Amino acid sequence: MLIQRLSIIGVGLIGASLASSLRKAGECNEVIGCGRGVENLRQAIDLGIIDRYYHDPAEAVKDADMVIIAVPLGSIANIFKAINKSLSPQAVITDVGSAKISVIADAKQHLTQHLADFVPGHPIAGSEKSGVTAANPNLFEDKRVILTTLPETKSQATELVKSMWEIAGAKVVNMSAAHHDQVLAATSHLPHLLAYSLVNTLAKMDSKTEIFQFAAGGFRDFTRIASSDPRMWHDICLSNQEAILQMLDCFNSDLNKLINAIKQKDSEQIETIFSHAKSIRDELF
Amino acid sequence: MLIQRLSIIGVGLIGASLASSLRKAGECNEVIGCGRGVENLRQAIDLGIIDRYYHDPAEAVKDADMVIIAVPLGSIANIFKAINKSLSPQAVITDVGSAKISVIADAKQHLTQHLADFVPGHPIAGSEKSGVTAANPNLFEDKRVILTTLPETKSQATELVKSMWEIAGAKVVNMSAAHHDQVLAATSHLPHLLAYSLVNTLAKMDSKTEIFQFAAGGFRDFTRIASSDPRMWHDICLSNQEAILQMLDCFNSDLNKLINAIKQKDSEQIETIFSHAKSIRDELF
Repeated sequence: MLIQRLSIIGVGLIGASLASSLRKAGECNEVIGCGRGVENLRQAIDLGIIDRYYHDPAEAVKDADMVIIAVPLGSIANIFKAINKSLSPQAVITDVGSAKISVIADAKQHLTQHLADFVPGHPIAGSEKSGVTAANPNLFEDKRVILTTLPETKSQATELVKSMWEIAGAKVVNMSAAHHDQVLAATSHLPHLLAYSLVNTLAKMDSKTEIFQFAAGGFRDFTRIASSDPRMWHDICLSNQEAILQMLDCFNSDLNKLINAIKQKDSEQIETIFSHAKSIRDELF
Repeated sequence: MLIQRLSIIGVGLIGASLASSLRKAGECNEVIGCGRGVENLRQAIDLGIIDRYYHDPAEAVKDADMVIIAVPLGSIANIFKAINKSLSPQAVITDVGSAKISVIADAKQHLTQHLADFVPGHPIAGSEKSGVTAANPNLFEDKRVILTTLPETKSQATELVKSMWEIAGAKVVNMSAAHHDQVLAATSHLPHLLAYSLVNTLAKMDSKTEIFQFAAGGFRDFTRIASSDPRMWHDICLSNQEAILQMLDCFNSDLNKLINAIKQKDSEQIETIFSHAKSIRDELF
């Protein structure tokens, strides 16, 4: 068995799905949950995802050999502070945050006694749904997990986290935190911000009810991600501010090129922009 | 039987799907196709969608009681010119263009002898796929079709077009061309332009191959519409220029509000923007 006592700090979609998956594979003996909401934690017990829970992270991590921090990015520093002194010397700690430079900075400041046991991680999986009731043991099947290990990270810690994600069906890769933050700003953070912004733009129109009524399937797909958890995305914007602002700047400049081409009725330029995008999209999917 | 001789000018996804649907319902005796590409027209015959074809629209509409113009917006004026003198006096003409003010202006200029028999229409259905091989008789099932009839349109013509779309499973509504163009700029044209622009932004990045590799499901959904036909979208941009530029302007101003909030790390503003979008999206779908 890979893990004796697993401690999940933040029993939401990601944490609960991973725990279910490890449990289903028989690779995890005991699961301790930690969170604020009693109802959510009781549901997690009822669903067989956790065995018991604490509200205090320091209590929840005691004697755990694996600690998974699956709280919004803005709360990770406080969790590090809370657990730093009560982690067992054998504990391996990982997180699932969507921005890695900020999490590593938090760890360097607050996880002082266990930095070499901390494996920064990010599963590229999720859903616009959240909470323990959306948990799914197959959520990570064939998905990628990015680890952004530090020079000081112990290789046994990295190996354990890698094995854990592989049991959940994921493919694990390693890259630098800076590169991770750029790639995610491009492929995930930027599209989410555009989707949120688009829905707000339409919602301000006079005939908004009618407008959404005429929205076709493409629009529904396009804006699905605007149903994602606002607090989580707020935290991502602050934690990955630099890379996100860079991407928004690039996007703005491309969009303005298209706007100018439409203003000038520049047929050639408009068609080039669309054909280029289509050929890239068709090639990659 | 609703239609004796149906003439489809432009045997692509929309025209071919509608013909299949009418044929399947037994409401159409003979189907004449018209287009440039011989291969596509032969496939349409092989698939049983059309009975024969012409390359010349004037030939193709002879003795037809229903003429459906399903070519890109930029080609509609030329079709009107070509068929004006060879349409039968009983013919009802409709189109499927995604912008209606421009089509009506074209009809007023070139369809002079049959303006009262012309019913401007637009089915809110489609796919990022195109061509006759993508045809599907169920494409319009439960979809909406917007008609933007003129004061001079004959009510029998409108009724016939309405019945035809209802047989294909669609719900038919009427509105002004100006209102149609605004609604579609918001719900369809703007999202398509954002998707094209986003793919181009990512494609310019150094690590583009890797970037697309890490793109999760949300991104795939979000950019699916960037695989749409570039020529068609070029024509839409020129035909609905005014409403599209207005929407792009609104979107730009909303996006810049979000960018400024992120720059200033204005937590309250960022979370308000996301929460508002989520509540609207959740309420409407």
